[in-house]
Amino acid sequence: MSTTVIIGGVAGGMSTATRLRRNDENMNIIVLESSGYVSFANCGLPYFIGGEITKRSNLLLQTPQSLKARFNLDVRTGSTATHINRAEKTVTVDGPEGTYELNYDNLVLSPGARPLTPPIPGIDKAFTLRTVEDTDRIVHTISTTEAKKAVVIGGGFIGLELAENLIKQGIDVTIVERAPHIMAPLDAEMAAIVTAHLEKSGVTILSNTQVTAIEDGVVHAGERKIPADTIIAALGVQPASDLAQQAGLELNEHGGIVVNSRQQTSDPAIFALGDAAQKTDAISGTATMVPLAQTANRHGRLVADIITGRNTEAQPVLGTAIIGLFGLAIATTGWNERRARAEDKNVRVIHSHPANHAGYYPGATSLNLKLIVDAEDDSILGAQAIGHDGVDKRIDIIATAMRARLKASDLADLELAYAPQFGSAKDPINMLGFINDNIIRGERTVQWHELDTTLQEGWTLVDVRTPSEYDRGSIPNAINIPVDELRDRLSELDGKKVLVHCQVGLRGHIACTLLSNNGIECANLDGGYITWKFGQATRS
Amino acid sequence: MSTTVIIGGVAGGMSTATRLRRNDENMNIIVLESSGYVSFANCGLPYFIGGEITKRSNLLLQTPQSLKARFNLDVRTGSTATHINRAEKTVTVDGPEGTYELNYDNLVLSPGARPLTPPIPGIDKAFTLRTVEDTDRIVHTISTTEAKKAVVIGGGFIGLELAENLIKQGIDVTIVERAPHIMAPLDAEMAAIVTAHLEKSGVTILSNTQVTAIEDGVVHAGERKIPADTIIAALGVQPASDLAQQAGLELNEHGGIVVNSRQQTSDPAIFALGDAAQKTDAISGTATMVPLAQTANRHGRLVADIITGRNTEAQPVLGTAIIGLFGLAIATTGWNERRARAEDKNVRVIHSHPANHAGYYPGATSLNLKLIVDAEDDSILGAQAIGHDGVDKRIDIIATAMRARLKASDLADLELAYAPQFGSAKDPINMLGFINDNIIRGERTVQWHELDTTLQEGWTLVDVRTPSEYDRGSIPNAINIPVDELRDRLSELDGKKVLVHCQVGLRGHIACTLLSNNGIECANLDGGYITWKFGQATRS
Repeated sequence: MSTTVIIGGVAGGMSTATRLRRNDENMNIIVLESSGYVSFANCGLPYFIGGEITKRSNLLLQTPQSLKARFNLDVRTGSTATHINRAEKTVTVDGPEGTYELNYDNLVLSPGARPLTPPIPGIDKAFTLRTVEDTDRIVHTISTTEAKKAVVIGGGFIGLELAENLIKQGIDVTIVERAPHIMAPLDAEMAAIVTAHLEKSGVTILSNTQVTAIEDGVVHAGERKIPADTIIAALGVQPASDLAQQAGLELNEHGGIVVNSRQQTSDPAIFALGDAAQKTDAISGTATMVPLAQTANRHGRLVADIITGRNTEAQPVLGTAIIGLFGLAIATTGWNERRARAEDKNVRVIHSHPANHAGYYPGATSLNLKLIVDAEDDSILGAQAIGHDGVDKRIDIIATAMRARLKASDLADLELAYAPQFGSAKDPINMLGFINDNIIRGERTVQWHELDTTLQEGWTLVDVRTPSEYDRGSIPNAINIPVDELRDRLSELDGKKVLVHCQVGLRGHIACTLLSNNGIECANLDGGYITWKFGQATRS
Repeated sequence: MSTTVIIGGVAGGMSTATRLRRNDENMNIIVLESSGYVSFANCGLPYFIGGEITKRSNLLLQTPQSLKARFNLDVRTGSTATHINRAEKTVTVDGPEGTYELNYDNLVLSPGARPLTPPIPGIDKAFTLRTVEDTDRIVHTISTTEAKKAVVIGGGFIGLELAENLIKQGIDVTIVERAPHIMAPLDAEMAAIVTAHLEKSGVTILSNTQVTAIEDGVVHAGERKIPADTIIAALGVQPASDLAQQAGLELNEHGGIVVNSRQQTSDPAIFALGDAAQKTDAISGTATMVPLAQTANRHGRLVADIITGRNTEAQPVLGTAIIGLFGLAIATTGWNERRARAEDKNVRVIHSHPANHAGYYPGATSLNLKLIVDAEDDSILGAQAIGHDGVDKRIDIIATAMRARLKASDLADLELAYAPQFGSAKDPINMLGFINDNIIRGERTVQWHELDTTLQEGWTLVDVRTPSEYDRGSIPNAINIPVDELRDRLSELDGKKVLVHCQVGLRGHIACTLLSNNGIECANLDGGYITWKFGQATRS
């Protein structure tokens, strides 16, 4: 009877354990979990703090007892693996029963990640959130101290989710973000949409701001001293790979455990997965770290299959992710523009701001979409979506298209479900494909950040919206010629190079084809006034 | 200057016209529309009747005037093309200004479809719904006669949407459907879910029932005489291809206008698209008729591109469609099981009933999914989804996967956006892939309609749910051994062939692996008690 020891009993580890049992009734399967809980809903922790999830027991999806009953697993909580002896194939365990050794035939490392705590004086006064115990501490403090003011250090997913949930508990929240904008997976002009929404929802955001010290009740951030009774450090995570390192397993530059496509570490009897393990980037094929629950779960199943003799391999990852914040959904997949440009890609970028479903049906809301395409081969590099409804759907469609290596132009012809409550006869995804196709066929677009230099090159900026739209807010130096008057006013633009824009880009496209077909050199401001406006916010 | 005449000014025709102008500023573009309106929201008409869409003007997306201003189109409403002279390249038009002829270089037929009106005595007393004028008639009658009881003949998309909207107006509705169940694109056990929901929402449904006559205020349906002050015939549509037929263009057996992949009819100067034109089925590659707005829109753009010299081709169609009924969404793509079996496919069918998002996050609701797979090559033949939230997303993901020729097993590894409000760490789509993979690897499943014969072959039916679930309703002859007790009670099943089932199939899978790994022959009832229960409803 072979023994598999699994270190880590949450997403990846427990998926491995239960699949192992389904594949092999006789294997000895031991799961070691340092914390007091296994298989808990880690993505739900912020929502318990905010009171959205009301029962603590709802976070605890399984217990060692339930896992014994259903899967005959030997699950040991409060049990930390302290040493791996690869030659002897043993693990030293420090648990409630003392210290002991376990033999293994296969060892699975799914230790997860731990919150980054940079060397800021007083950082130990800040809470972090990773485990049920962390959650209990935050809930206890909030409820016993009548917390009123919180500082969240770090504007990533966890920090933002916590900000929302602290606000729901009636606590003032300031987010301090070192980078130029929150939500690093987004590009700046897209992050500006989120920032505006958070600020409208009562969150104070200080970007480009470094926390230098934490004292009792005060966070020193840049020049400011921010009073705070609750301080949370949400600065990202690092792989919990100490044990792997001690065992001499190969780590990458981020401290991630290096694995092959079978999730094997440099020791073929030791597998690694989840937040601590290296992944392969789906676009570049290079090593990457993507700490996401769904990947851990899928790789858990895979590792179990490989251990029980199946010949299979992990797929590279896109890093598809989503977050909900005060009713807004923000999702991404693949690379952002920043990354694509850093990798020297010839980037084609498309912004659009369509309605989530047919505008004539009540309740339509705006989506903000961004598609990043490799102009060399029309492959999709990534996408970002922000809106109130239909965001997850659009990103999942693009993630599926990317996985299947569809081209950006193929989005034009996807056959998506249409009824006026659910989409549009030309779905926003189709529209992205159409816009992409138009650009391939020669339509020139100018990005929001290229506007100034384009105008400096002598282009004339024409706002083709209605006069009332123009009056409500316009781009400096734009002259207003509504698209429906353009055909009769061509003489005003004779001999000029014309940069047109509308609200979102669609009328601009119509205007641009009209001008081009009349022999006037033309470009369209991508994403129109809306993208430009959010772009301006990145400069403040 | 070349002239393109377009017959039909709604989805396909108007997409052609506007794209033509964007491609060619100088073309003479004439649109002929028989009704009084162009570019109206045909998919919104039922919702104006129900009052969901409150302004009639919202249905009218464009007017001849607005299309003249923006696209310099010559749009003629109330204008019917009565004859095509292919040799002379002329169209005879009967319009407000009398009868006249138009020359064309290219002719585009986008006449749409017309409601089927079978030869039932009195059928002329029934309303049909296709145009704004039809809508006005129904609204006028309802509001002036204080309608109380309606009969809708036909349980397809339009009939069901009308049923919901008439109920919203306080009108009793009976749907009379000739076939064994409503919603022909669904298989029987999936349609049963919709039927149950409609009945709970107050709709009376008579299936397997033929309307034999309509008298004033009475519909004769089977043996019944149903009193009705409002009668609607929604029996499907037929291509409006009379003109094409008169012109000697090739039609298919359904009366659809035969086109090649460039949407050209048997006369290369005449194009056809939309509900009247033949499509190519994406799965079989054979001719089909799929009257859907989104296909018409995409093909409109394509036809314009081809006319203006682009070398491009239409993609085959899946027939992806969705409908919302009393808060329930029902969507399909590709073939149903009935069709797949009729085509002699070796069919692998998977039912599942997962939550739309993580169960621990408030507000999770049930999805009902069905995946139809070709067991020979693991290709996806079709899918059906029913639920309150997340239905459109799941069908669109599968439709995208099908378009990209992903295999069913590839669904296991799609990387979809996960946060507890939006999905699950193992999304329902991933789970379909897992189940499919398990079956490929040898797990045997039994369909709801195969249960009786399986039991007759001597299999023992074991319900592995909890005793309280079992007590609330069970399958006849099932013995109850909860999955968590199964390992200790194996001796009870020694030497037996065991068919297990749970509520939705997941615990059944766990039980089945346990039994198989212990040497007991086992099969799992696909989709569990829920699928079986809905299957039973098809037999009543």
